[in-house]
Parts: sequence; structure tokens; C-alpha cells
Amino acid sequence: MTDIFEAPIPDSDLLEKAEQLRLASIKTSQTNNKDRIRALNLMADYLEKNSNEIIEANDEDYKKAKNKGISKALLSRLKLSNEKLSSGIEGVRKVGHLSDPTGQIQIKKELSEGLILERKTVPIGVLGVIFESRPDAVMQISSLAIRSGNGVMLKGGSEANFTNLAIVSALKKGLQESNLDENSICLLTSRKDSMAMLNLEKYVNLIIPRGSNALVKFIQENTRIPVLGHADGICHLYIDEKADIDMAIKVALDSKIQYPAACNAVETLLIHKEISFNFLKKAIPIFNSKDVKLIGDKKSVELGVAFEANYEDWQTEYLDLILSIKIVDHLDEAISHIQKFSSKHTDGIITKNIMNANKFMNEVDSAGVFHNCSTRFADGFRYGFGAEVGISTQALPPRGPVGLEGLVTYKYFLRGEGNIVDDFSSGRSIYTHKDL
Amino acid sequence: MTDIFEAPIPDSDLLEKAEQLRLASIKTSQTNNKDRIRALNLMADYLEKNSNEIIEANDEDYKKAKNKGISKALLSRLKLSNEKLSSGIEGVRKVGHLSDPTGQIQIKKELSEGLILERKTVPIGVLGVIFESRPDAVMQISSLAIRSGNGVMLKGGSEANFTNLAIVSALKKGLQESNLDENSICLLTSRKDSMAMLNLEKYVNLIIPRGSNALVKFIQENTRIPVLGHADGICHLYIDEKADIDMAIKVALDSKIQYPAACNAVETLLIHKEISFNFLKKAIPIFNSKDVKLIGDKKSVELGVAFEANYEDWQTEYLDLILSIKIVDHLDEAISHIQKFSSKHTDGIITKNIMNANKFMNEVDSAGVFHNCSTRFADGFRYGFGAEVGISTQALPPRGPVGLEGLVTYKYFLRGEGNIVDDFSSGRSIYTHKDL
Repeated sequence: MTDIFEAPIPDSDLLEKAEQLRLASIKTSQTNNKDRIRALNLMADYLEKNSNEIIEANDEDYKKAKNKGISKALLSRLKLSNEKLSSGIEGVRKVGHLSDPTGQIQIKKELSEGLILERKTVPIGVLGVIFESRPDAVMQISSLAIRSGNGVMLKGGSEANFTNLAIVSALKKGLQESNLDENSICLLTSRKDSMAMLNLEKYVNLIIPRGSNALVKFIQENTRIPVLGHADGICHLYIDEKADIDMAIKVALDSKIQYPAACNAVETLLIHKEISFNFLKKAIPIFNSKDVKLIGDKKSVELGVAFEANYEDWQTEYLDLILSIKIVDHLDEAISHIQKFSSKHTDGIITKNIMNANKFMNEVDSAGVFHNCSTRFADGFRYGFGAEVGISTQALPPRGPVGLEGLVTYKYFLRGEGNIVDDFSSGRSIYTHKDL
Repeated sequence: MTDIFEAPIPDSDLLEKAEQLRLASIKTSQTNNKDRIRALNLMADYLEKNSNEIIEANDEDYKKAKNKGISKALLSRLKLSNEKLSSGIEGVRKVGHLSDPTGQIQIKKELSEGLILERKTVPIGVLGVIFESRPDAVMQISSLAIRSGNGVMLKGGSEANFTNLAIVSALKKGLQESNLDENSICLLTSRKDSMAMLNLEKYVNLIIPRGSNALVKFIQENTRIPVLGHADGICHLYIDEKADIDMAIKVALDSKIQYPAACNAVETLLIHKEISFNFLKKAIPIFNSKDVKLIGDKKSVELGVAFEANYEDWQTEYLDLILSIKIVDHLDEAISHIQKFSSKHTDGIITKNIMNANKFMNEVDSAGVFHNCSTRFADGFRYGFGAEVGISTQALPPRGPVGLEGLVTYKYFLRGEGNIVDDFSSGRSIYTHKDL
């Protein structure tokens, strides 16, 4: 409530687009599974047919961006090679193979004679997706939205505008040829519009930011629309007194170096004091050999860690080959440290002691609590969801890695034969509440 | 983002209370089902033992409020008779009979050999409950919180301060005698503290407002903590061309007059033009005999409705014996009107035509869509949930009437044998993704 930024009021042009999208999304929500799968295949077909145009558009974006002198990392994300495009198209078809998240009956019961309650999953409505660079995201997000019967408002980085337009044009042709409304996908191209999207709470039901922590945080702080995502990923691994040291080193190493820029990479190692000498003696040379910079508290520096940590380190997501280390007196201290500094993404324990493992997993209130395995497993594909819409670190569901189920909600259907509540108040009718 | 109100920064005293509550809530989350049921029974016992003190405290509140000249309606809600107290105590025991919402396994699967994923329901953490008058709410909310393993921060109307303190003191004695931490229930008594609660996002995981639409709206607009609740309840009933007129009148009447102040009472009747003459001819005298004031569009006034409606009527929750009426040309017009004006709480259709019913129920995106029954059924108890924590009109779950499941979230537990992601990237291990 102390923001200085104010998301701009949507102008009439944007409101019109949003209304069009809302109406299209209602139509999309009414399509059946077969139609939606057919639409996905047609979307993929048109991406293939339009491959040349898409690659050319990307070349144009790339040249422009290079001339502007944008960073190498950004350029590499922007570049859409033939391989990347093909794999994106393949991805669109694969989304068709995921099982339909809508129409799942969660509750079915008789409330009273002739009065049947059903709770069924339905599309959320309109998704708002804001992402940086990576034009492949347009294909992925659009196909997930259509798969789940939603409409989608997309805003990509302006440096990828030509590419995004070419991709969306192909996707719309696919929708057109199927029975779906092509307005179910709406691409915004100006930054002003994407910021105004944050004020479209009457039209956009869920915002999914794809990009840097800073982007996610900015969006979370500037909209009342629910946001599916997470800002920081400060994950911890606690090496218990009763850990197998070789396993601990193997898992810690994987959690750090397998992909250091990922949100599920570990940032802080907590080590029980009783095992710290033996663990560090063996671990330090191994981490050194993998170019991992270790930054530790006083006690761990005494045991050979090269750099001393300050308070700031416990709350830093390095996203790099850097690992902070703290030696703790007991399990409770490890849990307290995690409760204080964890971003509630994923935190793990290495131990042979089941009691300690259970205490840790029960008391740490993060979306993922892991025992004897790498934090890097916290991922929708690895969990077997077939897709990952985002990872949420909020306390309420959906949390952790979210698959297609994050793009549906539910609705109560109540069917009667003229039933009225007064009959129950007066005792003429009774509730049976029978599961069906 | 244009609020002028700013929730006050929590002072050190409140922060200390919040921290104490947070720690207690972690302990509570670790208690088992038996302990929590025992605690509920002890809480009820102490309410009984302290009945005299509670009633005396309520007398004091009542006298004070009367002298201040507060409204009769408020006074009647404030008054805690022996009967109200007994039924509240009975309610606490009944919550113990509800099935445990925690520890439910939602997903269990093998990701790979020796790597087992479980998704299990767990308490949310700390609930923040802000309510007006009604001291009985303290008993109900506290027992639901303890039942689900949560801590709870309560703020009641200041006019009930003595009563609330006496009730909470008894509840805490019950917690003390059981194995639970008495700090799991925290009562705030100043308005300043309750407003500062809105800024306690580090401590409070969910806010449940109990009170007027204005209170709920105010809270929703002034906190980043998720809010379970709804402001308006503008429910519609559409009388289709193919409706049974007698059933339509019976259901419309029940939806309006069974309890007009409820959020699930109907506010607007939409009537297909083909049936409007016959329906209104029969319905108007019946509504008149029940003192329901009818306010209609031009066409319905021509058919005998006494008062003419203006635009404002379509967006008004009367909470009274007033019903607005609009005659529509077809089902689509009814759906459009609902999409525009519904608060997405509950909307119903009366028809003998299944196709029309299905179209209506599929296209109207409210939490509840009803066919041939009263909107007044939209209620957690009537749905058979055993309790109602709140009714949510948001697009995302939980929506509609929310039972105890609204007070739990879930967590992913992953247990391995030293598994690392690199083994999968390199092909040494493979994912099995087998449901267990």
C-alpha cells in the first residue's frame, strides 16, 4: 500500500479487446475435449506451415535487438532457431495428449430426494500471461490455455514483438479452422497495455508471470488479480547428524550445480555440528573442484570454508555457483532458520533417522519438503504432471509445481425438481446427504 | 491502488503476539486428530464451567451498548442468551465430530525407483478472523480453527469486548488442559490492531471476514493476504419459456422470502417473454400477499408490476422483500444479463427443457448454477459440509460455500534414497510416474 507505481487505467481499445476475449473465452469453455485437441493440432499445423515467416520475423527482432546492444543472455533467449521452433510445435501437439483437466467430477451427492449436487472442474476463464523474451513461451502458454478451455491475454517482451505476432497469427489460423473462436488468444504489444492488464480484474481471472524474480514481484505488488508464481526460490538442504555423508555430498552437489539458475536449486546448506567436521572435510574439495564458491558462518570458516557469510547471505538467492553454509546445534535450529529465511519453495533434509526426517517434513511449512533427494526434483514435469504452469510459494492451493489443474477451477451444479428450503425448515423434507 | 485508507503498521506489541501465535500454530499443526478432538471437548467443558462469567460479561457489554444507543438489530446480535451460549457450546462439540480435514493423501506416486511423491493436506497456518458483534462467532471460528490444526487471530466488534474476552479465556483454559498451546487462539481488542492485522502478511495466511458487505469489501481492498469471503450476493433466477409456472412461482418465492437478508436470496427475476404474461398474472398476487415489492422493467410494468426499475436496480442487493424483474427475449439475453450483473454467487434457471438448463448452467460462470431449485440451497450445511467457513465468489478455488477444506492447504512430500536429477539428465535413471 506504499507503492509509487500505479498501473495505468485500461483505455477503450484495450477494454474492447478484453471484452472480445472474455466472450471468446466463454465459447472456448463450452467446446468439448475432441474439439480442443483438434484445435491444438491445427495450431501446430499452421505453425509448421508458417515456419518461414516466423523465423524471418525472429531474424528481424534479433537484428534490431543486437543493434540496440541488449545482453548476450537475452539475445540467446530471443533467438528462435529451427530446432527451437520445431520443438515448440512438438510441444503444442504434446499438450493435446495431456488428459482433459475440465469436467472432472469432484463431488456428487444427493442432498435430498431429487436434489443432486455436483462439483465439476471448469476453465478459469481468461488467463493473463506476461513474459520476457523467449518467444517459444507464446506457443506453450497458448496451447495450455486452449487445452484447459481458457482464453489467454499474452504480453511478451517488446524485443520479440515481430516473432510473437507471427506466432500468434499462425495460432489464430489454427483456431479459425477448428471450431474455436480465434479471439481466444489476444496478444498485446505495448508495455502500456501490459501494465494496464494489471487493472483488468473484471476480465482477467489469473495472471501468470514468466520471467525474472523482479518481474514477478512487481506484478504481485501491483495487481489485485490472483498471481500464480513465485518471486524468490531460497531453498535449503539440512545435513542431519545422522546423514550418510556420501549421499549428503551427492545430493547437495546436484541440488546446487545441476542447474544453478533454477528456482529449485539450493542456496543454503545447514549442517548439524556433530557431522560438520567430517562432512566439510570431504565436501569442500569436491565443491571446489566444481567451482562452487562456499560462503559460511564463523564455525564453518574454522572448518575450512573460504569466505565468511553475513546476514545478507541467508536471504540471497544466488542463482549461481555460490552456496552459503551454516552449522547448527540441532534439528530445531535448522527448522527455525528455514522458517525465517525460506521462500517456502522447497527445503530438504538428508538423514538416516526417520524420526528426524518426519519432524523436519512436518514442521517446515514449504510447498515441498524433501527427504534424501535433490531439491531439483521440485518441478511439474518431474512430478509427472506433463506440464508446468508455474510454481507457487503461497500458503494456499495451488502451491508447489502446478500442472494443468492450475488452469481450472470448479463450479457447483445443483439440480432439483422444484425443491425449496422452506420445506426443510418446516420439516416436510429432510437432508439425506448421500454420496453418489 | 487508489485507496486513501492505509492499514496501520503493526506495532511491536502486535508483532510479538503474532510471532507467539505463529509458533503456537506450528505446534498445533503437529497435534494428532485425537488430541484436537480432546481439546475441542475441553474447550466446550470450560465454556460450560464459565457460563456465568460469560453471561455476566455479556450483560455488561449489552448495558454499555444500550446506553450508547446502538441499533436494535445490533443489540439483538450482541445479546448472548443462555440458549445461544448452550447452542454455541454444542456447536464446539459438533465440530469435533467433523472428519479431520488434514492428512488427506491427494496424490501418491512413484516418480522413479525409490523416489516417492505424496501430496497431503495440512493446516494453512494462521487464520485471521474479523467479525462484527455476534460473540457466538468466537466459539465457532475458534473450534473450526483448532479442528483443522490452525492458529487463529480474532478481532470482534468492540461492543462485545467483555464477552469475547470471557469466551476466549474459557477456550484457552480448555487448550491448556489438553496438549495444545493456549496461544493458538489470540484475541485482539482494539480497532487499531485489527486494522494492522491487514498488514501481517508474514504471520496471517488467510483472512476470513464475517460481517456486512461493506466490511468484507473494505478488507478485500486493503490487504494482500488472501481473503475468503464475498461482498455482494446478487443472485438471479431465470424463468425459462419452458418453465412449469407453479414450480417457478414456488421456487422464486422461496428464493426471495425464505430469508431475504441472506446472501443467497434472489434479487432479480429474469422472465422469458413468451411465459411472462401467464407467469406474472399468477405470480404478482402471490408476491403481493407476501409483501414482496416488485420493481420491473417497462415490459413487466405493462404486465402489472407496480414499480418501474432503473439501471441501479440490476446491481442492487436489496437484502429485503424487494425483487427486481426483467423480461428477456431469449435464454442468451438472460445469460448476458447475468454475466453483466451477477456477483457470481448463485444463479438459477427454472425450465423443463434439459438443453436450456445445460446451456444456462455451463455458460453462467457463477460458483453455483442451479436448475429447478431455490437459490437458498447455496450453503455449506445444506451442501452437507457440516460447517461453513465462508462463501467465496472468486473465480479460483475455494469457491462457493466452503467447509473445513477451506482451512487446509497441501504440501508435497518427496522421499528418496539419495536420488539426484543429474542421473535422469544423463539417462542413468528413468521416470516411472506410477500411481501408488
